[in-house]
Amino acid sequence: MAQSNETEQKPGPLSGITVLDFSRVLAGPYCTMILADLGARVIKVERFGTGDDTRAFGPFVDEESAYFMCFNRGKESISLDIKSPRDRELLERLLDSSDVLVENFRPGVMERLGYGPERLAKTHPHIVYTSISGFGHSGPFSELPGYDMVVQAMGGVMSLTGWPDGEPARVGTSFGDLGAALFGVVGILAALHSRNRDAQGSRVDIGMLDCQAALMETALARYDVEGKVPTRTGDNHPSLAPFETFMAEDGKFVICAGNDTLFLLMADALGSPQMALKPEFLTNDLRVQNRAQLVKDVEKITTSKPMQHWIDALNEAGVPCAPINTIDRLFSNPQLLARNMIVKVKGEGDRAVRTAGNPIKMSTMSEIDPESPIRAPRLNEHREAILAELMTKCGAYAPTSRARSEADEIESNSFCETAAKA
Amino acid sequence: MAQSNETEQKPGPLSGITVLDFSRVLAGPYCTMILADLGARVIKVERFGTGDDTRAFGPFVDEESAYFMCFNRGKESISLDIKSPRDRELLERLLDSSDVLVENFRPGVMERLGYGPERLAKTHPHIVYTSISGFGHSGPFSELPGYDMVVQAMGGVMSLTGWPDGEPARVGTSFGDLGAALFGVVGILAALHSRNRDAQGSRVDIGMLDCQAALMETALARYDVEGKVPTRTGDNHPSLAPFETFMAEDGKFVICAGNDTLFLLMADALGSPQMALKPEFLTNDLRVQNRAQLVKDVEKITTSKPMQHWIDALNEAGVPCAPINTIDRLFSNPQLLARNMIVKVKGEGDRAVRTAGNPIKMSTMSEIDPESPIRAPRLNEHREAILAELMTKCGAYAPTSRARSEADEIESNSFCETAAKA
Repeated sequence: MAQSNETEQKPGPLSGITVLDFSRVLAGPYCTMILADLGARVIKVERFGTGDDTRAFGPFVDEESAYFMCFNRGKESISLDIKSPRDRELLERLLDSSDVLVENFRPGVMERLGYGPERLAKTHPHIVYTSISGFGHSGPFSELPGYDMVVQAMGGVMSLTGWPDGEPARVGTSFGDLGAALFGVVGILAALHSRNRDAQGSRVDIGMLDCQAALMETALARYDVEGKVPTRTGDNHPSLAPFETFMAEDGKFVICAGNDTLFLLMADALGSPQMALKPEFLTNDLRVQNRAQLVKDVEKITTSKPMQHWIDALNEAGVPCAPINTIDRLFSNPQLLARNMIVKVKGEGDRAVRTAGNPIKMSTMSEIDPESPIRAPRLNEHREAILAELMTKCGAYAPTSRARSEADEIESNSFCETAAKA
Repeated sequence: MAQSNETEQKPGPLSGITVLDFSRVLAGPYCTMILADLGARVIKVERFGTGDDTRAFGPFVDEESAYFMCFNRGKESISLDIKSPRDRELLERLLDSSDVLVENFRPGVMERLGYGPERLAKTHPHIVYTSISGFGHSGPFSELPGYDMVVQAMGGVMSLTGWPDGEPARVGTSFGDLGAALFGVVGILAALHSRNRDAQGSRVDIGMLDCQAALMETALARYDVEGKVPTRTGDNHPSLAPFETFMAEDGKFVICAGNDTLFLLMADALGSPQMALKPEFLTNDLRVQNRAQLVKDVEKITTSKPMQHWIDALNEAGVPCAPINTIDRLFSNPQLLARNMIVKVKGEGDRAVRTAGNPIKMSTMSEIDPESPIRAPRLNEHREAILAELMTKCGAYAPTSRARSEADEIESNSFCETAAKA
């Protein structure tokens, strides 16, 4: 699919869905980026004046934040002054025509602004109202601030990452934010699916800590059954060998030969079939017990030639293996290139920045063109267009009628519908 | 929501959806576990004789695999002999009444079995056909075996995880499998959403390597803009300080005070307001430059009292912080307990095993009851029930008609419909 040269553009599966996005920084914007990649219209509601915090995060390209571009590609931006009655009225209109709301403030903030889930469940029951927060909107830690590293520490992954004789390490990407973002998308899409049936929105409440626990694989069960606290294993699989890093002449790579057949094939591919016959390596259990010796024996061979030689030989033999790539190597990885996984984003300037594309490949959706940069919006860029659109839709709201008093009381949210019926 | 004491059981948002699940081991079963948690009916089609490989993976409880229980809770099992015409006929019936197919074989396997996506797109165009594989079904690496550690190495996360002066570490959970599983669920639900509109299924093709790239956050963009290869940072955030691990009297914990206000609050909470006034710590940039000194100054204080003392003081002050929990500590974490995140699974025996629950909290769905163990199926447990159900539905297929020759030619998949029309 990624290879086909379709000329027909297929809109994404979420085309027609409008997301009102109050989120900022990472977890929320990553969640709505996925929705935008899948064809949803995402209207980013940004703070008056400064917008999303990450507009001030480096790296910068001609004073524009590449951080912001990465996660806000393909979205629209409107900056609202939540204290202004005019803007609050506008927001009610936007809510009327939105399907999904996403926010990642600390619990209580949306309520104080007047857009809490309970109020919207009454006035806009069709909306899928999604919160992503450190600890979720219930429970004793609910009010605590939950950053990525806080939930990586509390949720257990740091205790499992790093070397057995060393300190716990952070996962080198924001596993706490990104895991929560993905579960958030799942919740939203599940809610949209059920809304197709009963026309009712839902409240989706994602806590980053909950998601960390859900991503601990079998670690909880292992402790519950065996009573031993799972710990760090460095670069190897605790119960499979060889399943770890080996040194070649020019760098390190991994071999994952976790069963006897693969071990035989590996020994052959390394030109040392007799290795597979050694009594101390006959079974996986023996290889785990004699791991140090195994690594020594394998590296005696692998350090004699460059990594690519071994990767080619092992691939040929069907033994799972890979170079330990640094990030710069991803840009030339033939598989990522063939799958359109390196795409371009840009701000207002001409300079495009390369980042990762959409990993969800679907027959019913066109791929992102890796050569056409996707724009991230300027703060408030789409205000006039959105106002004009609402005016057309409702036939009553004139974006240029500046005479209207800022002190007007907040209008009923049903104004739009009332106008439409009239 | 997680707190409310609803007595009314609300079916999940995916109730009514049937998933035919050919997947085994981790990425596929984790994907379909999420679907089952959300209310889908998941029918696990297992290999004749042995079933899912993980039925043989430890840890074991009375000879049943706790590994298998964790990811197959709430599913049904039917074991099919794909070489038997009878079972192939049965499979066609199951396809007729399924909405989603999930498989995680290497590319080509489903085609060889006769259930490739192109054939099913013709005979069962309503199905959302989902593949999860190491590298996806296109591109030069497509045929290569892709284990979790292979894509962690190739996709860059290992190069970012661990200590700057040490070796790359594996993320201590199967980030490669679980990331792909989550993107798989997103693809499936997006496809179901669009199917609600146009009655057409989709082909969803997820490559684990693609997902790794998508989860590298801003690492690609940073390299593209700055030309420096991002590397490991151990336990700290490369551009924020203090944002790292500190030693208390009885263990390690993290403090994330990445801006000046939080740093002031932290200094106060540690009983050392003068720390915030030191010229070398006045701004975040200065604190990053003088990180070693900062850690030394903070630890001079924190090592004097137990961790919980500091956690309480910092929480009180609103400074993000957390203990670095080992897995055993999750079972008593009050937030995870309040959010129903510790649940029980069981096999045929009485002994239940504790594992993580469903992190997607929705107002329209009941929580998993943490006290009622969710069953994982015995191999082929649901065969008779499924046969009986198909017989009722189609009015023609008698599960007990053993006289029918095993050598019969494969029936048309439309047999069920034909029977229904007749």
